[in-house]
Amino acid sequence: MRTKIKKHIEKIHQQTENIEPFNPSNVAKRLAEIREYDLGLFFSSLSKLKDQHLGEVLLELPSEAFICALGRVPPHKIAAAAESIESDEATDLIQLIKNINEGLSDKVLSLIEWEDRSDIVELSKYNDDQAGAYMEHEFLSAQMSDTVATVKESVRRFRREESATPIIKLFIIDKEGKLLGSVHFSDLFLFDNDVTIEEVIASLGYRPPLSIRPVSPVNEVVQLFEEYDLNIIAVVDSSGKLIGRIVYDDIYDMIRHIEMDQAYALAGVREESEEGNLRSAAKQRLIWLLVNLGTVLIASFVISLFDETIASYVVLAALLPVVAALGGNAGMQALTVTIRKLALGEIEYANTAKTLKREVGIVMINGVAVAAVASSVVYVWFGDPMLSAIMAMAILSTLVIAGAAGTLIPLGLNKLGIDPAVASSVFLTTTTDILGFFIFLFMADTFL
Amino acid sequence: MRTKIKKHIEKIHQQTENIEPFNPSNVAKRLAEIREYDLGLFFSSLSKLKDQHLGEVLLELPSEAFICALGRVPPHKIAAAAESIESDEATDLIQLIKNINEGLSDKVLSLIEWEDRSDIVELSKYNDDQAGAYMEHEFLSAQMSDTVATVKESVRRFRREESATPIIKLFIIDKEGKLLGSVHFSDLFLFDNDVTIEEVIASLGYRPPLSIRPVSPVNEVVQLFEEYDLNIIAVVDSSGKLIGRIVYDDIYDMIRHIEMDQAYALAGVREESEEGNLRSAAKQRLIWLLVNLGTVLIASFVISLFDETIASYVVLAALLPVVAALGGNAGMQALTVTIRKLALGEIEYANTAKTLKREVGIVMINGVAVAAVASSVVYVWFGDPMLSAIMAMAILSTLVIAGAAGTLIPLGLNKLGIDPAVASSVFLTTTTDILGFFIFLFMADTFL
Repeated sequence: MRTKIKKHIEKIHQQTENIEPFNPSNVAKRLAEIREYDLGLFFSSLSKLKDQHLGEVLLELPSEAFICALGRVPPHKIAAAAESIESDEATDLIQLIKNINEGLSDKVLSLIEWEDRSDIVELSKYNDDQAGAYMEHEFLSAQMSDTVATVKESVRRFRREESATPIIKLFIIDKEGKLLGSVHFSDLFLFDNDVTIEEVIASLGYRPPLSIRPVSPVNEVVQLFEEYDLNIIAVVDSSGKLIGRIVYDDIYDMIRHIEMDQAYALAGVREESEEGNLRSAAKQRLIWLLVNLGTVLIASFVISLFDETIASYVVLAALLPVVAALGGNAGMQALTVTIRKLALGEIEYANTAKTLKREVGIVMINGVAVAAVASSVVYVWFGDPMLSAIMAMAILSTLVIAGAAGTLIPLGLNKLGIDPAVASSVFLTTTTDILGFFIFLFMADTFL
Repeated sequence: MRTKIKKHIEKIHQQTENIEPFNPSNVAKRLAEIREYDLGLFFSSLSKLKDQHLGEVLLELPSEAFICALGRVPPHKIAAAAESIESDEATDLIQLIKNINEGLSDKVLSLIEWEDRSDIVELSKYNDDQAGAYMEHEFLSAQMSDTVATVKESVRRFRREESATPIIKLFIIDKEGKLLGSVHFSDLFLFDNDVTIEEVIASLGYRPPLSIRPVSPVNEVVQLFEEYDLNIIAVVDSSGKLIGRIVYDDIYDMIRHIEMDQAYALAGVREESEEGNLRSAAKQRLIWLLVNLGTVLIASFVISLFDETIASYVVLAALLPVVAALGGNAGMQALTVTIRKLALGEIEYANTAKTLKREVGIVMINGVAVAAVASSVVYVWFGDPMLSAIMAMAILSTLVIAGAAGTLIPLGLNKLGIDPAVASSVFLTTTTDILGFFIFLFMADTFL
């Protein structure tokens, strides 16, 4: 253990001394492990970090180590750390502190210099699904009449004041601060000091700028970045005034956030609740379990209608889960593919019919194959050709229903403006269970 | 319809004439709709696109429209389009053509000028899970002894030859082409023409460069970009020679690719098969259904062991799906959260025990709640207090097993080096079904 801790200390040192690139999440993980071994060493390592590194590491610490760090790092040091990171990160940091200790977050906020503080207050207004939550107020801009020499001066100033923020692009604004366009530095680099921005733009060819609003939904922002292969976009207010920017690393986070929401929604889990304590996670998940209990009780009721048939042929009870499981699985395959195609915008215009045709085609092929295997097993097991035939028919029809439902349910919910990931799977299993049990038992009741 | 098509033509015109920014996927969608209405108009609109736009649009066309376009656009025009887009995109384009018509892709490849052709041949060697598949061979580099004026000349040449490729950063190499470092243009911009790159680096402070190999797994590349907030990284060969670069928009694709693989794996679907024809998708999905058939037949066998009990209490048959459904759902919640934490690297070091404790805690709380509701319903429905008590016990124990299995299965598979998303859910439902049915029926057999 001691050698492992020594190695952590050494690795952190290499990163803070710029011998290796600084990796906040890596340092945070090493610090978390140091804390479990030696609390004093954890605090002394934290206190040695310079402001910017401290801010970035605090954001990456696991929750227990973070709470522990808050108890010891003085508020003025946290405030300095928040000032030296980008405004969207500083906002996240204050929010994390607020979740744990509202008094402390107010205290830290009051120690942050006025300009950064008002940025944080402004950014806190937006929720996780809005572009504003990912926006940085730090950006570099110039007016048409400015010369290249003036821009160089601005770059030098920006580098002094915001050493942690990559510049990426120069935004061009008018006297009222309204966005007119943007220039890459690899282009600007080619012009002499006395050339004006207006002349630069004229020589490069004017391109209309893309921009978004801070209230734009995250989905739309990601779509713009992906469709235009952007690495930066301007954020403007309702009057067209440039107020911030969103850059590539925010897009990495947004895509992860969107994908995670979708994966969780399919299982009836929510990210925000999972990040909270055990009780909040349990509460959110319980709702889903109770909804599922409700729907499966309807399926039970359907089974109970055939109690006399089951009493005479008890094997039916053993085979019911087979019909339900296969219907559920085939339906989930169609559902997953359809939800994914919807999310990537691949189902548009007149091709919903095509999607349905394909999905039903797949379950027809697979239905025949699975029904053949399952009914053979049933025949070998129970030696009853009629039971075997009923099993085959029930599986085939349940799978076709499952494929159609797995496609139509998300498409329908999407048309109604409901996120298909959230509600589709309940509707799907309800449909396949109820219809699957009914078809199987009805046929057994009629033919056995 | 006619006015809609007119609007499409107009919108495409605005984008190709640079009145609006060019959006390949948007143009591709409009063209696909034009094709369904007027095939001639589709071809004439395609032929009006300049090479670079044509290349980008071909990559975004839905498969039917793409196949149709290949039949009419002359090979030399496709070759010109491939030459004018980035080498990784050109490789994708040739690959897409090859999937449809190998003769045509060979023909197009032979018409591409030597340098671009050898890039494409080189990039085709890597598969979708390797960094090489996303690498571009186009990049800008300079040596330590070069002056800023020389770099300006290189930028002008690069702009003429590769107008579609953003420059982003200047790579610095030695005489053998080995990577030494990199500079942002917003920094380089501040230096005079006669300053050498060596002096620039000395004045900015040397930073060790990050790089990857073309065979690096996509997961690791994405991790680097996310941890260091990168927008570009150098790709080097085994001797450290700079051979290409990967940029932010490739990362957007990679994250989507990784997330899609995971969502699909959970449902027993595979991206490559889904992109193929109906038969390839059906075949891949069938394997999953047969595996599930096998496991659920084991559960059926467990039920059949208790046939006498079920014959005496037919209500048990109606209640079996309730136990299975609740166990499956609670297990999938734990499983989804655990897989996600594993993917994001949040479960490391000594905290697997913590994760298990939390997940089992959640199912204990929810198990009591769901068991209370379910057993009340059973009591009201059947009026049998013992049956109601058995139901409660069975649900509670099945949920606890489901929570533990939903956590331990992905952790175990991950430890064995197996992707937990691919296999976890089969193991989970097998466990919850078999144990759930057994506990329920065993208790019924004993106490009823």
